[in-house]
Amino acid sequence: MHGMMMNQPLSIMEILRYASGAHPGAGIVSVRTEGDIHRETYAEAYARGAQLAHGLDALGIGRGDRVATLAWNGYRHFEIYYGVSGMGAVCHTINPRLSAEQMLYIIGHAEDKVLCVDLTFVPLIEALSEHLPRNLKIVVLTDRAHMPDSRLDLLCYEEILAGKPDTYDWPHLDEQTAAALCYTSGTTGHPKGALYTHRSTVMHAMTVAITLNKSLKEGAKILPVVPLFHVNAWGLPYAAPLAGATLVMPGPKLDGASLYDLMEAEGVTSAWGVPTVWMGLRAEIEKRGRPPKGFEQVMVGGSAAPRSMIEGFEKDGIDVCHAWGMTEMSPVGTHGQLSEPMKALPWDEQMRLKSLQGRRLFGVEMKIVDEQGAPLPHDGTAMGELFVRGNTVVSGYFNNPEASDKALDSEGWFGTGDVATINDHGFLSIQDRSKDLIKSGGEWISSIDLENIVMACPKVASCAVIAVAHPKWDERPLLIVVPKGDEKPTLEELHELLLESVAKWQLPDALEFVQELPLTATGKVSKLTLRKQFEGYQLPDAD
Amino acid sequence: MHGMMMNQPLSIMEILRYASGAHPGAGIVSVRTEGDIHRETYAEAYARGAQLAHGLDALGIGRGDRVATLAWNGYRHFEIYYGVSGMGAVCHTINPRLSAEQMLYIIGHAEDKVLCVDLTFVPLIEALSEHLPRNLKIVVLTDRAHMPDSRLDLLCYEEILAGKPDTYDWPHLDEQTAAALCYTSGTTGHPKGALYTHRSTVMHAMTVAITLNKSLKEGAKILPVVPLFHVNAWGLPYAAPLAGATLVMPGPKLDGASLYDLMEAEGVTSAWGVPTVWMGLRAEIEKRGRPPKGFEQVMVGGSAAPRSMIEGFEKDGIDVCHAWGMTEMSPVGTHGQLSEPMKALPWDEQMRLKSLQGRRLFGVEMKIVDEQGAPLPHDGTAMGELFVRGNTVVSGYFNNPEASDKALDSEGWFGTGDVATINDHGFLSIQDRSKDLIKSGGEWISSIDLENIVMACPKVASCAVIAVAHPKWDERPLLIVVPKGDEKPTLEELHELLLESVAKWQLPDALEFVQELPLTATGKVSKLTLRKQFEGYQLPDAD
Ligand SMILES: Nc1ncnc2c1ncn2[C@@H]1O[C@H](COP(=O)(O)O)[C@@H](O)[C@H]1O
Repeated sequence: MHGMMMNQPLSIMEILRYASGAHPGAGIVSVRTEGDIHRETYAEAYARGAQLAHGLDALGIGRGDRVATLAWNGYRHFEIYYGVSGMGAVCHTINPRLSAEQMLYIIGHAEDKVLCVDLTFVPLIEALSEHLPRNLKIVVLTDRAHMPDSRLDLLCYEEILAGKPDTYDWPHLDEQTAAALCYTSGTTGHPKGALYTHRSTVMHAMTVAITLNKSLKEGAKILPVVPLFHVNAWGLPYAAPLAGATLVMPGPKLDGASLYDLMEAEGVTSAWGVPTVWMGLRAEIEKRGRPPKGFEQVMVGGSAAPRSMIEGFEKDGIDVCHAWGMTEMSPVGTHGQLSEPMKALPWDEQMRLKSLQGRRLFGVEMKIVDEQGAPLPHDGTAMGELFVRGNTVVSGYFNNPEASDKALDSEGWFGTGDVATINDHGFLSIQDRSKDLIKSGGEWISSIDLENIVMACPKVASCAVIAVAHPKWDERPLLIVVPKGDEKPTLEELHELLLESVAKWQLPDALEFVQELPLTATGKVSKLTLRKQFEGYQLPDAD
Repeated sequence: MHGMMMNQPLSIMEILRYASGAHPGAGIVSVRTEGDIHRETYAEAYARGAQLAHGLDALGIGRGDRVATLAWNGYRHFEIYYGVSGMGAVCHTINPRLSAEQMLYIIGHAEDKVLCVDLTFVPLIEALSEHLPRNLKIVVLTDRAHMPDSRLDLLCYEEILAGKPDTYDWPHLDEQTAAALCYTSGTTGHPKGALYTHRSTVMHAMTVAITLNKSLKEGAKILPVVPLFHVNAWGLPYAAPLAGATLVMPGPKLDGASLYDLMEAEGVTSAWGVPTVWMGLRAEIEKRGRPPKGFEQVMVGGSAAPRSMIEGFEKDGIDVCHAWGMTEMSPVGTHGQLSEPMKALPWDEQMRLKSLQGRRLFGVEMKIVDEQGAPLPHDGTAMGELFVRGNTVVSGYFNNPEASDKALDSEGWFGTGDVATINDHGFLSIQDRSKDLIKSGGEWISSIDLENIVMACPKVASCAVIAVAHPKWDERPLLIVVPKGDEKPTLEELHELLLESVAKWQLPDALEFVQELPLTATGKVSKLTLRKQFEGYQLPDAD
């Protein structure tokens, strides 16, 4: 028997419409590529979203068409998110850190009709222009005064909006309508596109707002260092207006000093980003002797957050919430806020728990399975591949039947490619990417565990552990370190440090120093590149 | 174009399943009718919900069947909410304050198969037993030791659960599946049933948790004085486990001293209920000279909260959030938390704003219209009937095509029967009621029902019943009579007449005689004029 309730489709534009009325004090503060600071309320963004939709109508954009962006975090990018999805088109965010080849592949695969670029990326587009589709319209996110000289036929964003009505008859869309598209670099082959719906996006905004309510609350000021081109900045452009929080968009400058100054000036209450970014901010906080005023919480995810970093922030009184997720999950899957009973534990134990990936969000189901696909217990020791299910999880990839076929298991769960344990408190602990795991003599070694411990050594700036082929043990760990300062750590002293927490057989067999670690387009350490770089590496005792 | 995301139906049981894993510290504390205090975690409630579902299976309950409750706030009532909806049946909460006649009508109309009653209500059921459907199974919410002697064939709740497996293969239900049923007293005629879906209920829990996050947060202890038999206790049994808050169920004793003691003992952080209840608590706070320790917020709604009460709590440092809603809205529609810019206003102005009904929840759309149905501006002065739309609003009434036909306007909006203004900050202010109802202590009295009965008295030519302000009950009925002939009826004899059909608490408090009743342009009695005429009327016992 069905109930007798109305059915209004979940709609992205309804979030901004709601915020524009219900949260008059909140909006978007942006460091502009033009150099100044810009402020607009959500009501203003809503009106400009309407103008943009009229402008895109005039450019011939229709339902389902893809409108791409190549842009930093700023209010115009935010307006595109809403204007494009709101009119029933698809907002396709492109990661500027991709190789030219991948970028061109993506633009072609998505069949983008419009590409909106920040000033910074005009030279890049000029360089690629010959390979871009003929009919791709390029819009520069600036006003007439700042439009660059270019041999290309460039449209000006502010001119597209100028004079257009500031209301729009937003269509009543089926909640399954495609709203946004984001490609993820696979371990092999071409990037694959996650095609989010209005329903999945609104559900993600709601569940994130419910759970991460230390950050997402009315009056909060949230700094998304995580880029709008990377899985919708973890959903912040949707969750923040829903909760009534202001977004402080940092623009392109993400070094520790710039972030610190911006946070202090704007009274940022929480900041969201990958661990790499927080290294710079931590250094700056140490230099200045105190955290920015009013700074309450740092949300860290995208890679495992090293425990030393978590402890650093926590000692300064800043709550650290470690989150795990992926492009295919909209992206947030879990969060590491301690549950009530855990808050009574000794500090050390709390820090250990905080360095795990934490508890699932409402609506995200998780299972770990063995190699035959049989479910494993959530006992904190059984380790298996992690599968997820829920309204915010992809059911396949855009226009890619081959990858789509492989995405789900026979019961409809999505395979994350992460290997994990889940303890009896529901805390997820990612042990490794299934590709990065080290299997030595039939036993797993977690490179992430080793890395986290080594990071605590003051002589280490960053590090990575990779698997190297070994004649006897199959694989053995190799430790690669970027030293901090002049005095390099020795393998012996790192072994000593490691032995406090890991078994002897898990110790890395060798140590190598590099100037910097190779990064993927999303700023994570590229284990793939490292493994290639050290292919055939001769371990000391492996002969 | 559709996106490529999974579609998991929103499901009530998923809330409890989630809470049982993600919020190990939270659960339900109940003052039992047996007299003691009982504690269970959400994980335990989840397990007992499974046992109950097995038990109901054994009793022959299937999908869509109605399982009714006549019970106070307690853990068993909570378990029924989940167990019944989770198995695909419908949880039908009955208001014990209804007249016997109405109660019997509702049980018959809903075609209840099982009726779960608290010990307190056994005598009531015994009195009604002859009129109850033959095959209605009566379950008493207690254990064997406390089972009452009765000539009726009573089942024991704990025996139904005993020995059953504590897991259940919860069906994967369409999210439109009916989950819960709650009758509301209409202006005329019989009560009408709002039939909630899994989708509407989960959406309500999520939007309430996002917005009312001062109350609904992990580790909070929430006291629902609002009954579980009244619109699902404002959704708390769903929103609290979702947010990780503990529910402190007060049982039947709701006087100021009992509430104060319970709050102090359990460290209640927020309390939800109608204004009448808070009068008693305010008096107790004044008597003891301070509010209960840890008490942060009071949520008040169901009737307009008097400003003096709001100021009383606020002066004690307790945040007051005034909410508006109705049975047909699941029920919360608006909340009166001040928006950020308002927090800078003078205290007096803040208190004025707090006494309005406040801002809409995400997903609840509001419009006010004039008599022709044309929308009016949200300027704080234009006054019109309030219409609402959204996923948490009814689209009609259970098994009542006639009422369903009249429920929505031509654009699909639900007419609330409230007359309101909305200001440019989105703040709703309820001005009047177009429906002919009196709300006393959070419960409805139908003036039309009373009028129809009184008209049967040969000494009455015509009559009207209007609401008069009352310090404790908010509103009480005043009976206004145009006498027929010389001999005027007495209040006593009219009470006697009324008692044949209505409950005692619904009797008019006073009787006034007039020469004639004022009429509207269309010849109906003008309640508006009458209410103005008797403004400030002093009821006999209202001092
Ligand atoms: N905060 C409030 N202020 C004024 N009236 C209210 C408030 N909350 C509820 N009501 C009234 O109660 C009705 C809903 O009653 P019910 O369906 O019993 O919950 C609304 O339509 C209003 O008339």
